[in-house]
Amino acid sequence: MHLTSETLETAIEQLAKLPGMGRKSAQRMAMHLLKQSADQVNQLAQSLLDLKTKIIYCSVCFTITDKDPCPICTSDKRKNGIICVVEDPKDVYVIEKTNEFKGRYHVLGGVISPMENVGPNDIRIKELIDRINDENEGISEIILALNPDAEGEATAYYINKMAKNFGVNVTRIAHGVPMGTELEFIDEATLSRAFTGRNTF
Amino acid sequence: MHLTSETLETAIEQLAKLPGMGRKSAQRMAMHLLKQSADQVNQLAQSLLDLKTKIIYCSVCFTITDKDPCPICTSDKRKNGIICVVEDPKDVYVIEKTNEFKGRYHVLGGVISPMENVGPNDIRIKELIDRINDENEGISEIILALNPDAEGEATAYYINKMAKNFGVNVTRIAHGVPMGTELEFIDEATLSRAFTGRNTF
Repeated sequence: MHLTSETLETAIEQLAKLPGMGRKSAQRMAMHLLKQSADQVNQLAQSLLDLKTKIIYCSVCFTITDKDPCPICTSDKRKNGIICVVEDPKDVYVIEKTNEFKGRYHVLGGVISPMENVGPNDIRIKELIDRINDENEGISEIILALNPDAEGEATAYYINKMAKNFGVNVTRIAHGVPMGTELEFIDEATLSRAFTGRNTF
Repeated sequence: MHLTSETLETAIEQLAKLPGMGRKSAQRMAMHLLKQSADQVNQLAQSLLDLKTKIIYCSVCFTITDKDPCPICTSDKRKNGIICVVEDPKDVYVIEKTNEFKGRYHVLGGVISPMENVGPNDIRIKELIDRINDENEGISEIILALNPDAEGEATAYYINKMAKNFGVNVTRIAHGVPMGTELEFIDEATLSRAFTGRNTF
């Protein structure tokens, strides 16, 4: 194909690398940006550069933040003593959106996965133990909000065993039939878990 | 919602402004970029900035290019005398991908639209006339590749009338049933056009 602009081609290639993007959407985006003002494109580019220069990890809970410790760890509106353990900063994001959880977080930065050579020492379990031992934190309950796959289960199992040694109560978020979904569309593993986790009506 | 990073939020907002992007996809993209190396994010950001600083319009055909005149206008492998008239630089892009057309282009930069107060003087019709009058170009045929909507039709009609005055042959690309589509799924306007434009078998 004969190109009239290598610059455009490069931008399309770069955009096409983003998740969920095909070449067609990348093309449409590049063409759209061409028509935007220099100011608007600058703002977009700068916001992307900022992702790598301004965002750091909270030294307490290890979620991403612009300021260490993060606003959740320092907020006096959050409940002390209850920690929600997640795999990834994006899980914090998702849970915050529910407005349901008012405690603090702990981001493991991964899950135990023997297949991929990730052991308990490769994720932030030691840091979780330090927090359990920290009297200022006064941790009484750990809520596990890990993904319901093999690695998530293994990690949940490990943390449950560890925390019990410290006399900390461990719970996990309910897995079951999603709201608004009909039973016939649910996979068997989920439905089976929904039975195991049944509640008194 | 309690945010831990304004920087992340800003990047998500910026990405969500792009065409075809919802907030969820913007979130997924921002999270993905966070995990990329600074180098990779720099390359993406730079390629977007380049769109506004390095891309110019060809002074001959008015498509976008890194170098004026553009590679199509200067190529000695392209046929002289046949000019394909399109609305937008992205149409050049799409047509080049077919590898079917070997002449040169002329990008109008818009179409005649009384509703939006766009007249013949607001698009590059004067520049097209200059090219027709240019003996070096030796234009003998103009192929109209405009969109088959009211504005495209009005513009085609105008250019056809104008070019006839200069003794230039005007053709237009065929509109009809797309390849691989069943008749029952075609709208009536397209099907009607397919009949009008029928060819000898």
